[in-house]
Amino acid sequence: MTYEFDEQTAVTRRDDATYAADLAPGWSVGGGLNGGYLLAVLGNALRQAFPAKPDPVAVSAYYLSASEAGPAEVSVAVRRDGGSLATAAADLRQGDDVRITALATYGDLGRLGGDVRTTADEPDMPPPDQCVPNTMAPPQMRAVAPLMDRFDMRFHPDHIGWTVGQPSGNGVLSAWFRLADGREPDPISLLLVVDALPPVTFDLGLPGWAPTLELTAHVRARPAPGWLKVRHATRNLAGGMFEEDCEVWDSAGRLVAQSRQLARQPRA
Amino acid sequence: MTYEFDEQTAVTRRDDATYAADLAPGWSVGGGLNGGYLLAVLGNALRQAFPAKPDPVAVSAYYLSASEAGPAEVSVAVRRDGGSLATAAADLRQGDDVRITALATYGDLGRLGGDVRTTADEPDMPPPDQCVPNTMAPPQMRAVAPLMDRFDMRFHPDHIGWTVGQPSGNGVLSAWFRLADGREPDPISLLLVVDALPPVTFDLGLPGWAPTLELTAHVRARPAPGWLKVRHATRNLAGGMFEEDCEVWDSAGRLVAQSRQLARQPRA
Repeated sequence: MTYEFDEQTAVTRRDDATYAADLAPGWSVGGGLNGGYLLAVLGNALRQAFPAKPDPVAVSAYYLSASEAGPAEVSVAVRRDGGSLATAAADLRQGDDVRITALATYGDLGRLGGDVRTTADEPDMPPPDQCVPNTMAPPQMRAVAPLMDRFDMRFHPDHIGWTVGQPSGNGVLSAWFRLADGREPDPISLLLVVDALPPVTFDLGLPGWAPTLELTAHVRARPAPGWLKVRHATRNLAGGMFEEDCEVWDSAGRLVAQSRQLARQPRA
Repeated sequence: MTYEFDEQTAVTRRDDATYAADLAPGWSVGGGLNGGYLLAVLGNALRQAFPAKPDPVAVSAYYLSASEAGPAEVSVAVRRDGGSLATAAADLRQGDDVRITALATYGDLGRLGGDVRTTADEPDMPPPDQCVPNTMAPPQMRAVAPLMDRFDMRFHPDHIGWTVGQPSGNGVLSAWFRLADGREPDPISLLLVVDALPPVTFDLGLPGWAPTLELTAHVRARPAPGWLKVRHATRNLAGGMFEEDCEVWDSAGRLVAQSRQLARQPRA
C-alpha cells in the first residue's frame, strides 16, 4: 500500500546534488503550501543523499517565498559527512525562486543510546474521542485550508475557544494528530507535524495566518505507531513577531520532536 | 574607547562575499573557542553585508569542527534581500575546514512595532550582589576556561549546587550577565550571551563540556544598557543529546533574545 503522504512528498534523484519533486495542491493553506509539508519534501531529498544516515536530527529552514503546487527542485550541498552525523545545506526551488533555504544534520536515530531522562511533562489530554475533531471546522475555513483534509486532528477542548470567538489568551494549542490516510509517523513525517496545527496566535485572538520566517526542528527519536500529541505554545509576541514552540509526543509517551519557529504576527 | 569584545569580534571586508577575522585565544573553553563568540564574529560579517539591516533577527548555526585562535574567514552568500528583511548563508572557515555553517535573517530591530505582549515570566533573581560571582570559580576550572575572564556573571544561588557536588537535578541555570570590559549589550553581543553560561547539564550532575551541534537564536529587541538576566533550561536529555533553551532579559524587563541549541550530552 502506498500512502498519500509518501506519494506527495516523494523526490526523484536527478544527480548527486539534485532531486525533483512535484508539490501537491492538497497541502495548501491560505495563499501557499504548508511549511511542514515542504520540510518533509526537503527532508526526503536529504534522506536520499545520506543513505546510511536516514533520519533528520536537526533541520533549520528559512522560508523565503510562498510555494505553489507543481514542479520543484531540491538541491543538496554536503557540508560535512563523518562519524555518526552528516550536515548539508539544501534549497527548495521553483523556477528561479528559492522557496526554502535550509541546513540539516542527519544521523541514525536507531543507533542512539537508550538513556531517556526527559523532565518535560507529557501534555495532559482527554482521549481522542473526547476531543474536538478538525472535521468540525467551519466550511469557510476548510475551503481556504485543503491541508486540513490531510489530517485527523482532535483538539483539546480547553484550547479551542477561538473557534467560537473566545480565545483563552494563554497562547497554547494542543491536539491529537495522525495522518488521515493512516500512515504511521516516522522522523520525516514529524517534519510535517511540527508545523501542522493552526498558528498558536489563534489562541491569542489573532486569527489570521502567520507566515513562518524560520523554523528549526529537532527529531529526538523514531516515533512509536499511533496517535501523536502535539502542543504549540508562544510566550513572546512582540514587535510584530512571535515564537512558536512545538512538542510532539508519541503513543509510548516519549518526547520525539521539538521545534521552534519565528513567525510574523497575523494582521489584526 | 574600544572594547575588547568589539576588537576581538571585528571583521575586515575583503570583497562583497568575504570577511577576514582573527580569533582571539581569550574566548577558549576546553578544547576550542566558545560557540557564542564565533557566532558574534559571524554576525559582524553579516552586519557589514547588510548595512541597512544591521540586526540579527534569526541565526541558525551548525557547528562542524572545533575552532582555534588565529585567522579565520567568513564567507557570505545572500539568498534574499527585499522588503524589511534579508537572508544569507554564511560560513566561518579556518584554512580548508568549515567551523560553522549558518543561515541568518537580518533586519532593523529599531523599526519593529512597539507592541509587546510577552507572557513569559521574567526570571526571579536576587540582586547581583546577592548572587555568586564567576570569579569564585575554582582555579582548575578557570585554567581550562579563559572565557570566564571575559564575563561578569552572578549565578542564582539556587542554581549552583553543582559547584559543590550537589546539582539540583532540575536542569536550570540562571545568572546575571555583563561583559567584563563594561561594553553594553547589543544585538551582536546577544549572539554571544545565548551560549555564554556553563552547559545546563552541570545542574543535572553531568559536569563535562557539551559540544553544540546546532544553535538557533532569535533576537527580538535591542537590549537596554545594564545587566542582562540569562536563563538556561533543558527538558529533554535523551539518546545522548539534549536541548538547551536560553532566554535573555534586559534591564528594562524585556525578553530580548531566545535561543535553543541541540548539544551532545557530556560523558559521565
